[in-house]
Amino acid sequence: MRIGRKAKEMRAVWFEKGIIHLIDQRLLPSRMKIFKARDYRDVAFAIKDMVVRGAPAIGVTAAYGMAQAQQQKRDMELVSKVLKATRPTAYDLFFTVDHMLKEKKQGNDLSKVAEDYCERIVDECRRIGDLGEHIIRGGARILTHCNAGALATVDHGTALAPIRAAHRNGKKLFVLVDETRPRLQGAKLTSWELRNEGIEHAVIADNAAGFYMERGEIDIAFVGADRIASNGDVANKIGTYEKAVLAHENDVPFYICAPLSTFDFNLQSGKDIPIEERAGDEVRLVGGHRIMDRRIKVKNPAFDVTPARYVTGIITPEGTIRPDEVRSLRD
Amino acid sequence: MRIGRKAKEMRAVWFEKGIIHLIDQRLLPSRMKIFKARDYRDVAFAIKDMVVRGAPAIGVTAAYGMAQAQQQKRDMELVSKVLKATRPTAYDLFFTVDHMLKEKKQGNDLSKVAEDYCERIVDECRRIGDLGEHIIRGGARILTHCNAGALATVDHGTALAPIRAAHRNGKKLFVLVDETRPRLQGAKLTSWELRNEGIEHAVIADNAAGFYMERGEIDIAFVGADRIASNGDVANKIGTYEKAVLAHENDVPFYICAPLSTFDFNLQSGKDIPIEERAGDEVRLVGGHRIMDRRIKVKNPAFDVTPARYVTGIITPEGTIRPDEVRSLRD
Repeated sequence: MRIGRKAKEMRAVWFEKGIIHLIDQRLLPSRMKIFKARDYRDVAFAIKDMVVRGAPAIGVTAAYGMAQAQQQKRDMELVSKVLKATRPTAYDLFFTVDHMLKEKKQGNDLSKVAEDYCERIVDECRRIGDLGEHIIRGGARILTHCNAGALATVDHGTALAPIRAAHRNGKKLFVLVDETRPRLQGAKLTSWELRNEGIEHAVIADNAAGFYMERGEIDIAFVGADRIASNGDVANKIGTYEKAVLAHENDVPFYICAPLSTFDFNLQSGKDIPIEERAGDEVRLVGGHRIMDRRIKVKNPAFDVTPARYVTGIITPEGTIRPDEVRSLRD
Repeated sequence: MRIGRKAKEMRAVWFEKGIIHLIDQRLLPSRMKIFKARDYRDVAFAIKDMVVRGAPAIGVTAAYGMAQAQQQKRDMELVSKVLKATRPTAYDLFFTVDHMLKEKKQGNDLSKVAEDYCERIVDECRRIGDLGEHIIRGGARILTHCNAGALATVDHGTALAPIRAAHRNGKKLFVLVDETRPRLQGAKLTSWELRNEGIEHAVIADNAAGFYMERGEIDIAFVGADRIASNGDVANKIGTYEKAVLAHENDVPFYICAPLSTFDFNLQSGKDIPIEERAGDEVRLVGGHRIMDRRIKVKNPAFDVTPARYVTGIITPEGTIRPDEVRSLRD
């Protein structure tokens, strides 16, 4: 992704000299700082505290975490347990840790495997961009929710990959970005990425997405995914379900973008996806500023599940499929 | 409404010794302060800057503003123009100012008329509470959006009136309150009113309302209204349309609560309701804390229109009607 005025090319996650480097997403856009994870406890903290977030980026971070643990001669079963216990919803985390454990049992060098895995994710995102780009017409007004950009996926993004590709191909675009309470990933991260790319956009309160759909001012919606079940149900950031229902009601095509690591073929339906409930202070505070007294009860589910019937298509590196075609990807 | 530990009974708006007193809703819940409007310019400022908000409370404030202007021997045509220019969406404002002008032309004392008007609104809200209370079963899990409480209506509330009545009648309730970005009226005002009444509740990000509906954890929804057209379309706080569509999709009864002053029989449909676009900094700042750089483009529509087909019923002081029965109220 391009960062700053000099359009420096950079990734959200990389592994260098035994240290996992992460753009600290808790601080963006006001501060650009690199978080250095020196052992598996740092990695677990970084995932749990959302230094790094976004299912594919979490997966790559966990892959590097396993590689680092092997270099440091850690108890790999313990490390895999600790990493898996950080966050329950994004499937990429479980997929990656299991993948690394299997590779280790086959006697492979996990540093090499993790590097290959990272390149694979980046390449899958690039392909999602190329495939999705064809769906976007010039002049399109696009809705996106949360951040499914390069920050969430190491590079390119899932939902933002087609938008980046269309922009680089010279298509004129306008992106409406849901601010995405409680953590404001849209307002803080997606807006930052789009600004870096020079893509025209506006941030809206999550409440306003339906308003613009109903007015016919949104042509298409792209979002990412944290876990996709065999029947095409999709877990993603809280609020995705709301936007999907509204898109369906207003005939706005609603696309999910995801690499293969996000598909959980073990799950028959989205009803089985565990939904993380995060700390109430994520709702009570906004950017460190308290808007609600700590005595006020809040509920804070971090994800929701969008039933397959609201999904127009899923853009994968293998092509764009209907949600009822998810099982075909397994083969 | 009851306020504070001593459960002091208080109104949101009153007129005393020529001064209009308003609970300053910009400061709640952290500070309880009374704003004193000493002339029509203060009244216009209070409405525009949302010292007072909520369609019925704006209407009453405008009525007192006209009475005050008559006492101060102002140019009544000028005052009515200034007051009407403050906010475009809530119909109560226009209804009230025109009502007062007409009374003045008939040579009536507007102080008396405004006092009667305020009592009428309070009484209408009480009746909405009594009628709506019958729809709420014990143990109900209720969703509400924004603040349609006593603060928004002088006393009792519209959407909160049935909830208050059910609670006072001993029904066990649990209210889920949308925080209602950008201005957080749910998190700040509705939560404060419910706490004062001792009604169990939790605040959620606006994105989470659909999640709980889809899970079957919301039994019924009550919201207020800013303007209701003849065909039953309802303008209300931004996000109401989203929640109404989601309620419809999940078979959750969705009720609008409004006094008669909110019905605009001149409008055939909601498409003709003017929607206020407010300052971008309402989105960029949260409770005075900047979450987005001022260079980031934002859009901030303050209201949306819910088409009548998503509305289960409208609870009015004259009874609960279907949205297609709005015209019958005129007679």
